[in-house]
Amino acid sequence: MIPVLETIRTAHERIAPYVHRTPVLTCQTINRLAGAEIYFKCENFQKIGAFKARGGVNAVLSLTPEELTNGVTTHSSGNHAQAIAYAAALVGTKAYIVMPSTAPQVKKDAVRGYGAEVIECEPTLEARESTVEKVIADYGSTMIHPFNDYRVIAGQATATKELIEDYGLFDTIMAPVGGGGLLSGTALAAYYLSPTTEVIAGEPEGAADAALSFKSGHIEKAPYIKTIADGLLTSLGDKTLEIIRLHVKDILLVSDPEIIDAMRLIWERMKIIIEPSCAVPFAALLKNKEQFAGKKVGIILTGGNVDLGKLPF
Amino acid sequence: MIPVLETIRTAHERIAPYVHRTPVLTCQTINRLAGAEIYFKCENFQKIGAFKARGGVNAVLSLTPEELTNGVTTHSSGNHAQAIAYAAALVGTKAYIVMPSTAPQVKKDAVRGYGAEVIECEPTLEARESTVEKVIADYGSTMIHPFNDYRVIAGQATATKELIEDYGLFDTIMAPVGGGGLLSGTALAAYYLSPTTEVIAGEPEGAADAALSFKSGHIEKAPYIKTIADGLLTSLGDKTLEIIRLHVKDILLVSDPEIIDAMRLIWERMKIIIEPSCAVPFAALLKNKEQFAGKKVGIILTGGNVDLGKLPF
Repeated sequence: MIPVLETIRTAHERIAPYVHRTPVLTCQTINRLAGAEIYFKCENFQKIGAFKARGGVNAVLSLTPEELTNGVTTHSSGNHAQAIAYAAALVGTKAYIVMPSTAPQVKKDAVRGYGAEVIECEPTLEARESTVEKVIADYGSTMIHPFNDYRVIAGQATATKELIEDYGLFDTIMAPVGGGGLLSGTALAAYYLSPTTEVIAGEPEGAADAALSFKSGHIEKAPYIKTIADGLLTSLGDKTLEIIRLHVKDILLVSDPEIIDAMRLIWERMKIIIEPSCAVPFAALLKNKEQFAGKKVGIILTGGNVDLGKLPF
Repeated sequence: MIPVLETIRTAHERIAPYVHRTPVLTCQTINRLAGAEIYFKCENFQKIGAFKARGGVNAVLSLTPEELTNGVTTHSSGNHAQAIAYAAALVGTKAYIVMPSTAPQVKKDAVRGYGAEVIECEPTLEARESTVEKVIADYGSTMIHPFNDYRVIAGQATATKELIEDYGLFDTIMAPVGGGGLLSGTALAAYYLSPTTEVIAGEPEGAADAALSFKSGHIEKAPYIKTIADGLLTSLGDKTLEIIRLHVKDILLVSDPEIIDAMRLIWERMKIIIEPSCAVPFAALLKNKEQFAGKKVGIILTGGNVDLGKLPF
């Protein structure tokens, strides 16, 4: 069942001891450039360096002792992998994380750093899913889907819950969209706690499945996949699509140069490190300034896990 | 006269409307690596991207209307230039900023962005000083020295005042040392507000004048100048040397590779952008872990103005 407000509140109480109530930053120079009053919710300062800690911890802490007995499993090339590894360590169960062989060594090392076992596979969705099935068959572990899971969605919703609790009502709240876990949670939290808020997503042109699915009502594939925003490559799931169709106002597309410019602006002006996927909603705002002129806008800064040796500038 | 506590309090009230009360960040991973409990005072989030806004604003706001009539002048290749330009704009007076011709275009543009006039000179201390003298003769403007000025020192002291007000007493507070304005202010604020705190500085091996001067009691030159910490190249002044000799416990030297490692650790683990000079005290702590083991340490993160196109990693 789609999480209700009470579900999100319970999730928040459950995860509070294990995740940060992240700070919200503002920047007058950026407000001047953007022509809006922007509040950045800094999930780049979150545990494991990304909002995924919220959903991962909520999902794992929601499991029964029986479900935890044989460990937990997921597939992810990045932040969700670390989130599940972190959450499994909290409850003292084993995590089996299926990762594409092409994932950066530093990310595999980070997952192993939480005591998880990394199982490598070919870098295709099919290989990921078949490897997960094999892991579950072999170990009897419990799968935690990266986004198409109401426990994960309720966890991600807590970022927006905090933002509204700490800074009041907003005209607009923005988040990026990949599989839609964060966007769904953002939209639900806004709907329950600040119903007049419009939730608007940013999506890369080079992974534009969600914008298509949002219009058609069916899960569509992206016309092509080529973007620096490597956290946003996946398509929506049925659960996230339903919530997004119900509670999201629009999904705006941005190009990679626009993403890189927005990312650089935040690095240079706010002195904080965000990953390319994280810059997507801010890029969408800058591209559509007239739409946001004078508005009070919350933006979820999703994560800060970048390879400093491979920066786009 | 060396600023007394009341001077620092007055400076704080004077500048409060124009500078940020910057956040203090902690990081469990870094505490574990360092073996200490570290509180980072984030002056990289300060106005103009560095603590220099504090001293610059206090100095300019302390001037009489007569002293302000013909504008203010300073020489600086970096953050102090922006601080004085910013402060002059606040009070509506002209700023004439002498900058070496080799200063990055982006820094000259930033100074001009505050409405200041940039006067370029050869990149030597002699050329800087003679150009400043000419500017003062031509325009009758008032000089604000970057560090050897009690108004500047009292302004810089407010960062440590806030740190102690917000987080209580510390075993140790650390700052980098270049000309010694920040270190003097840090040492005075700690002496007045937390007298049992030891103030310890970090200095690059490739600009090690302060460590020598601290021992000899005279203003010494660095044996050689070659370091990535380009904000710390200047020697102490008589005012800063006196305060540092009275109230600083030690000055620890670090190499450039140690500075770069410390800088990278903060970027990767804390997701914040700091400039190389800013990483120096943390590098000194990591190099001397046994000395800081288990202690509660405050570190002033001085600034975040880096050229993203020229990173050392």
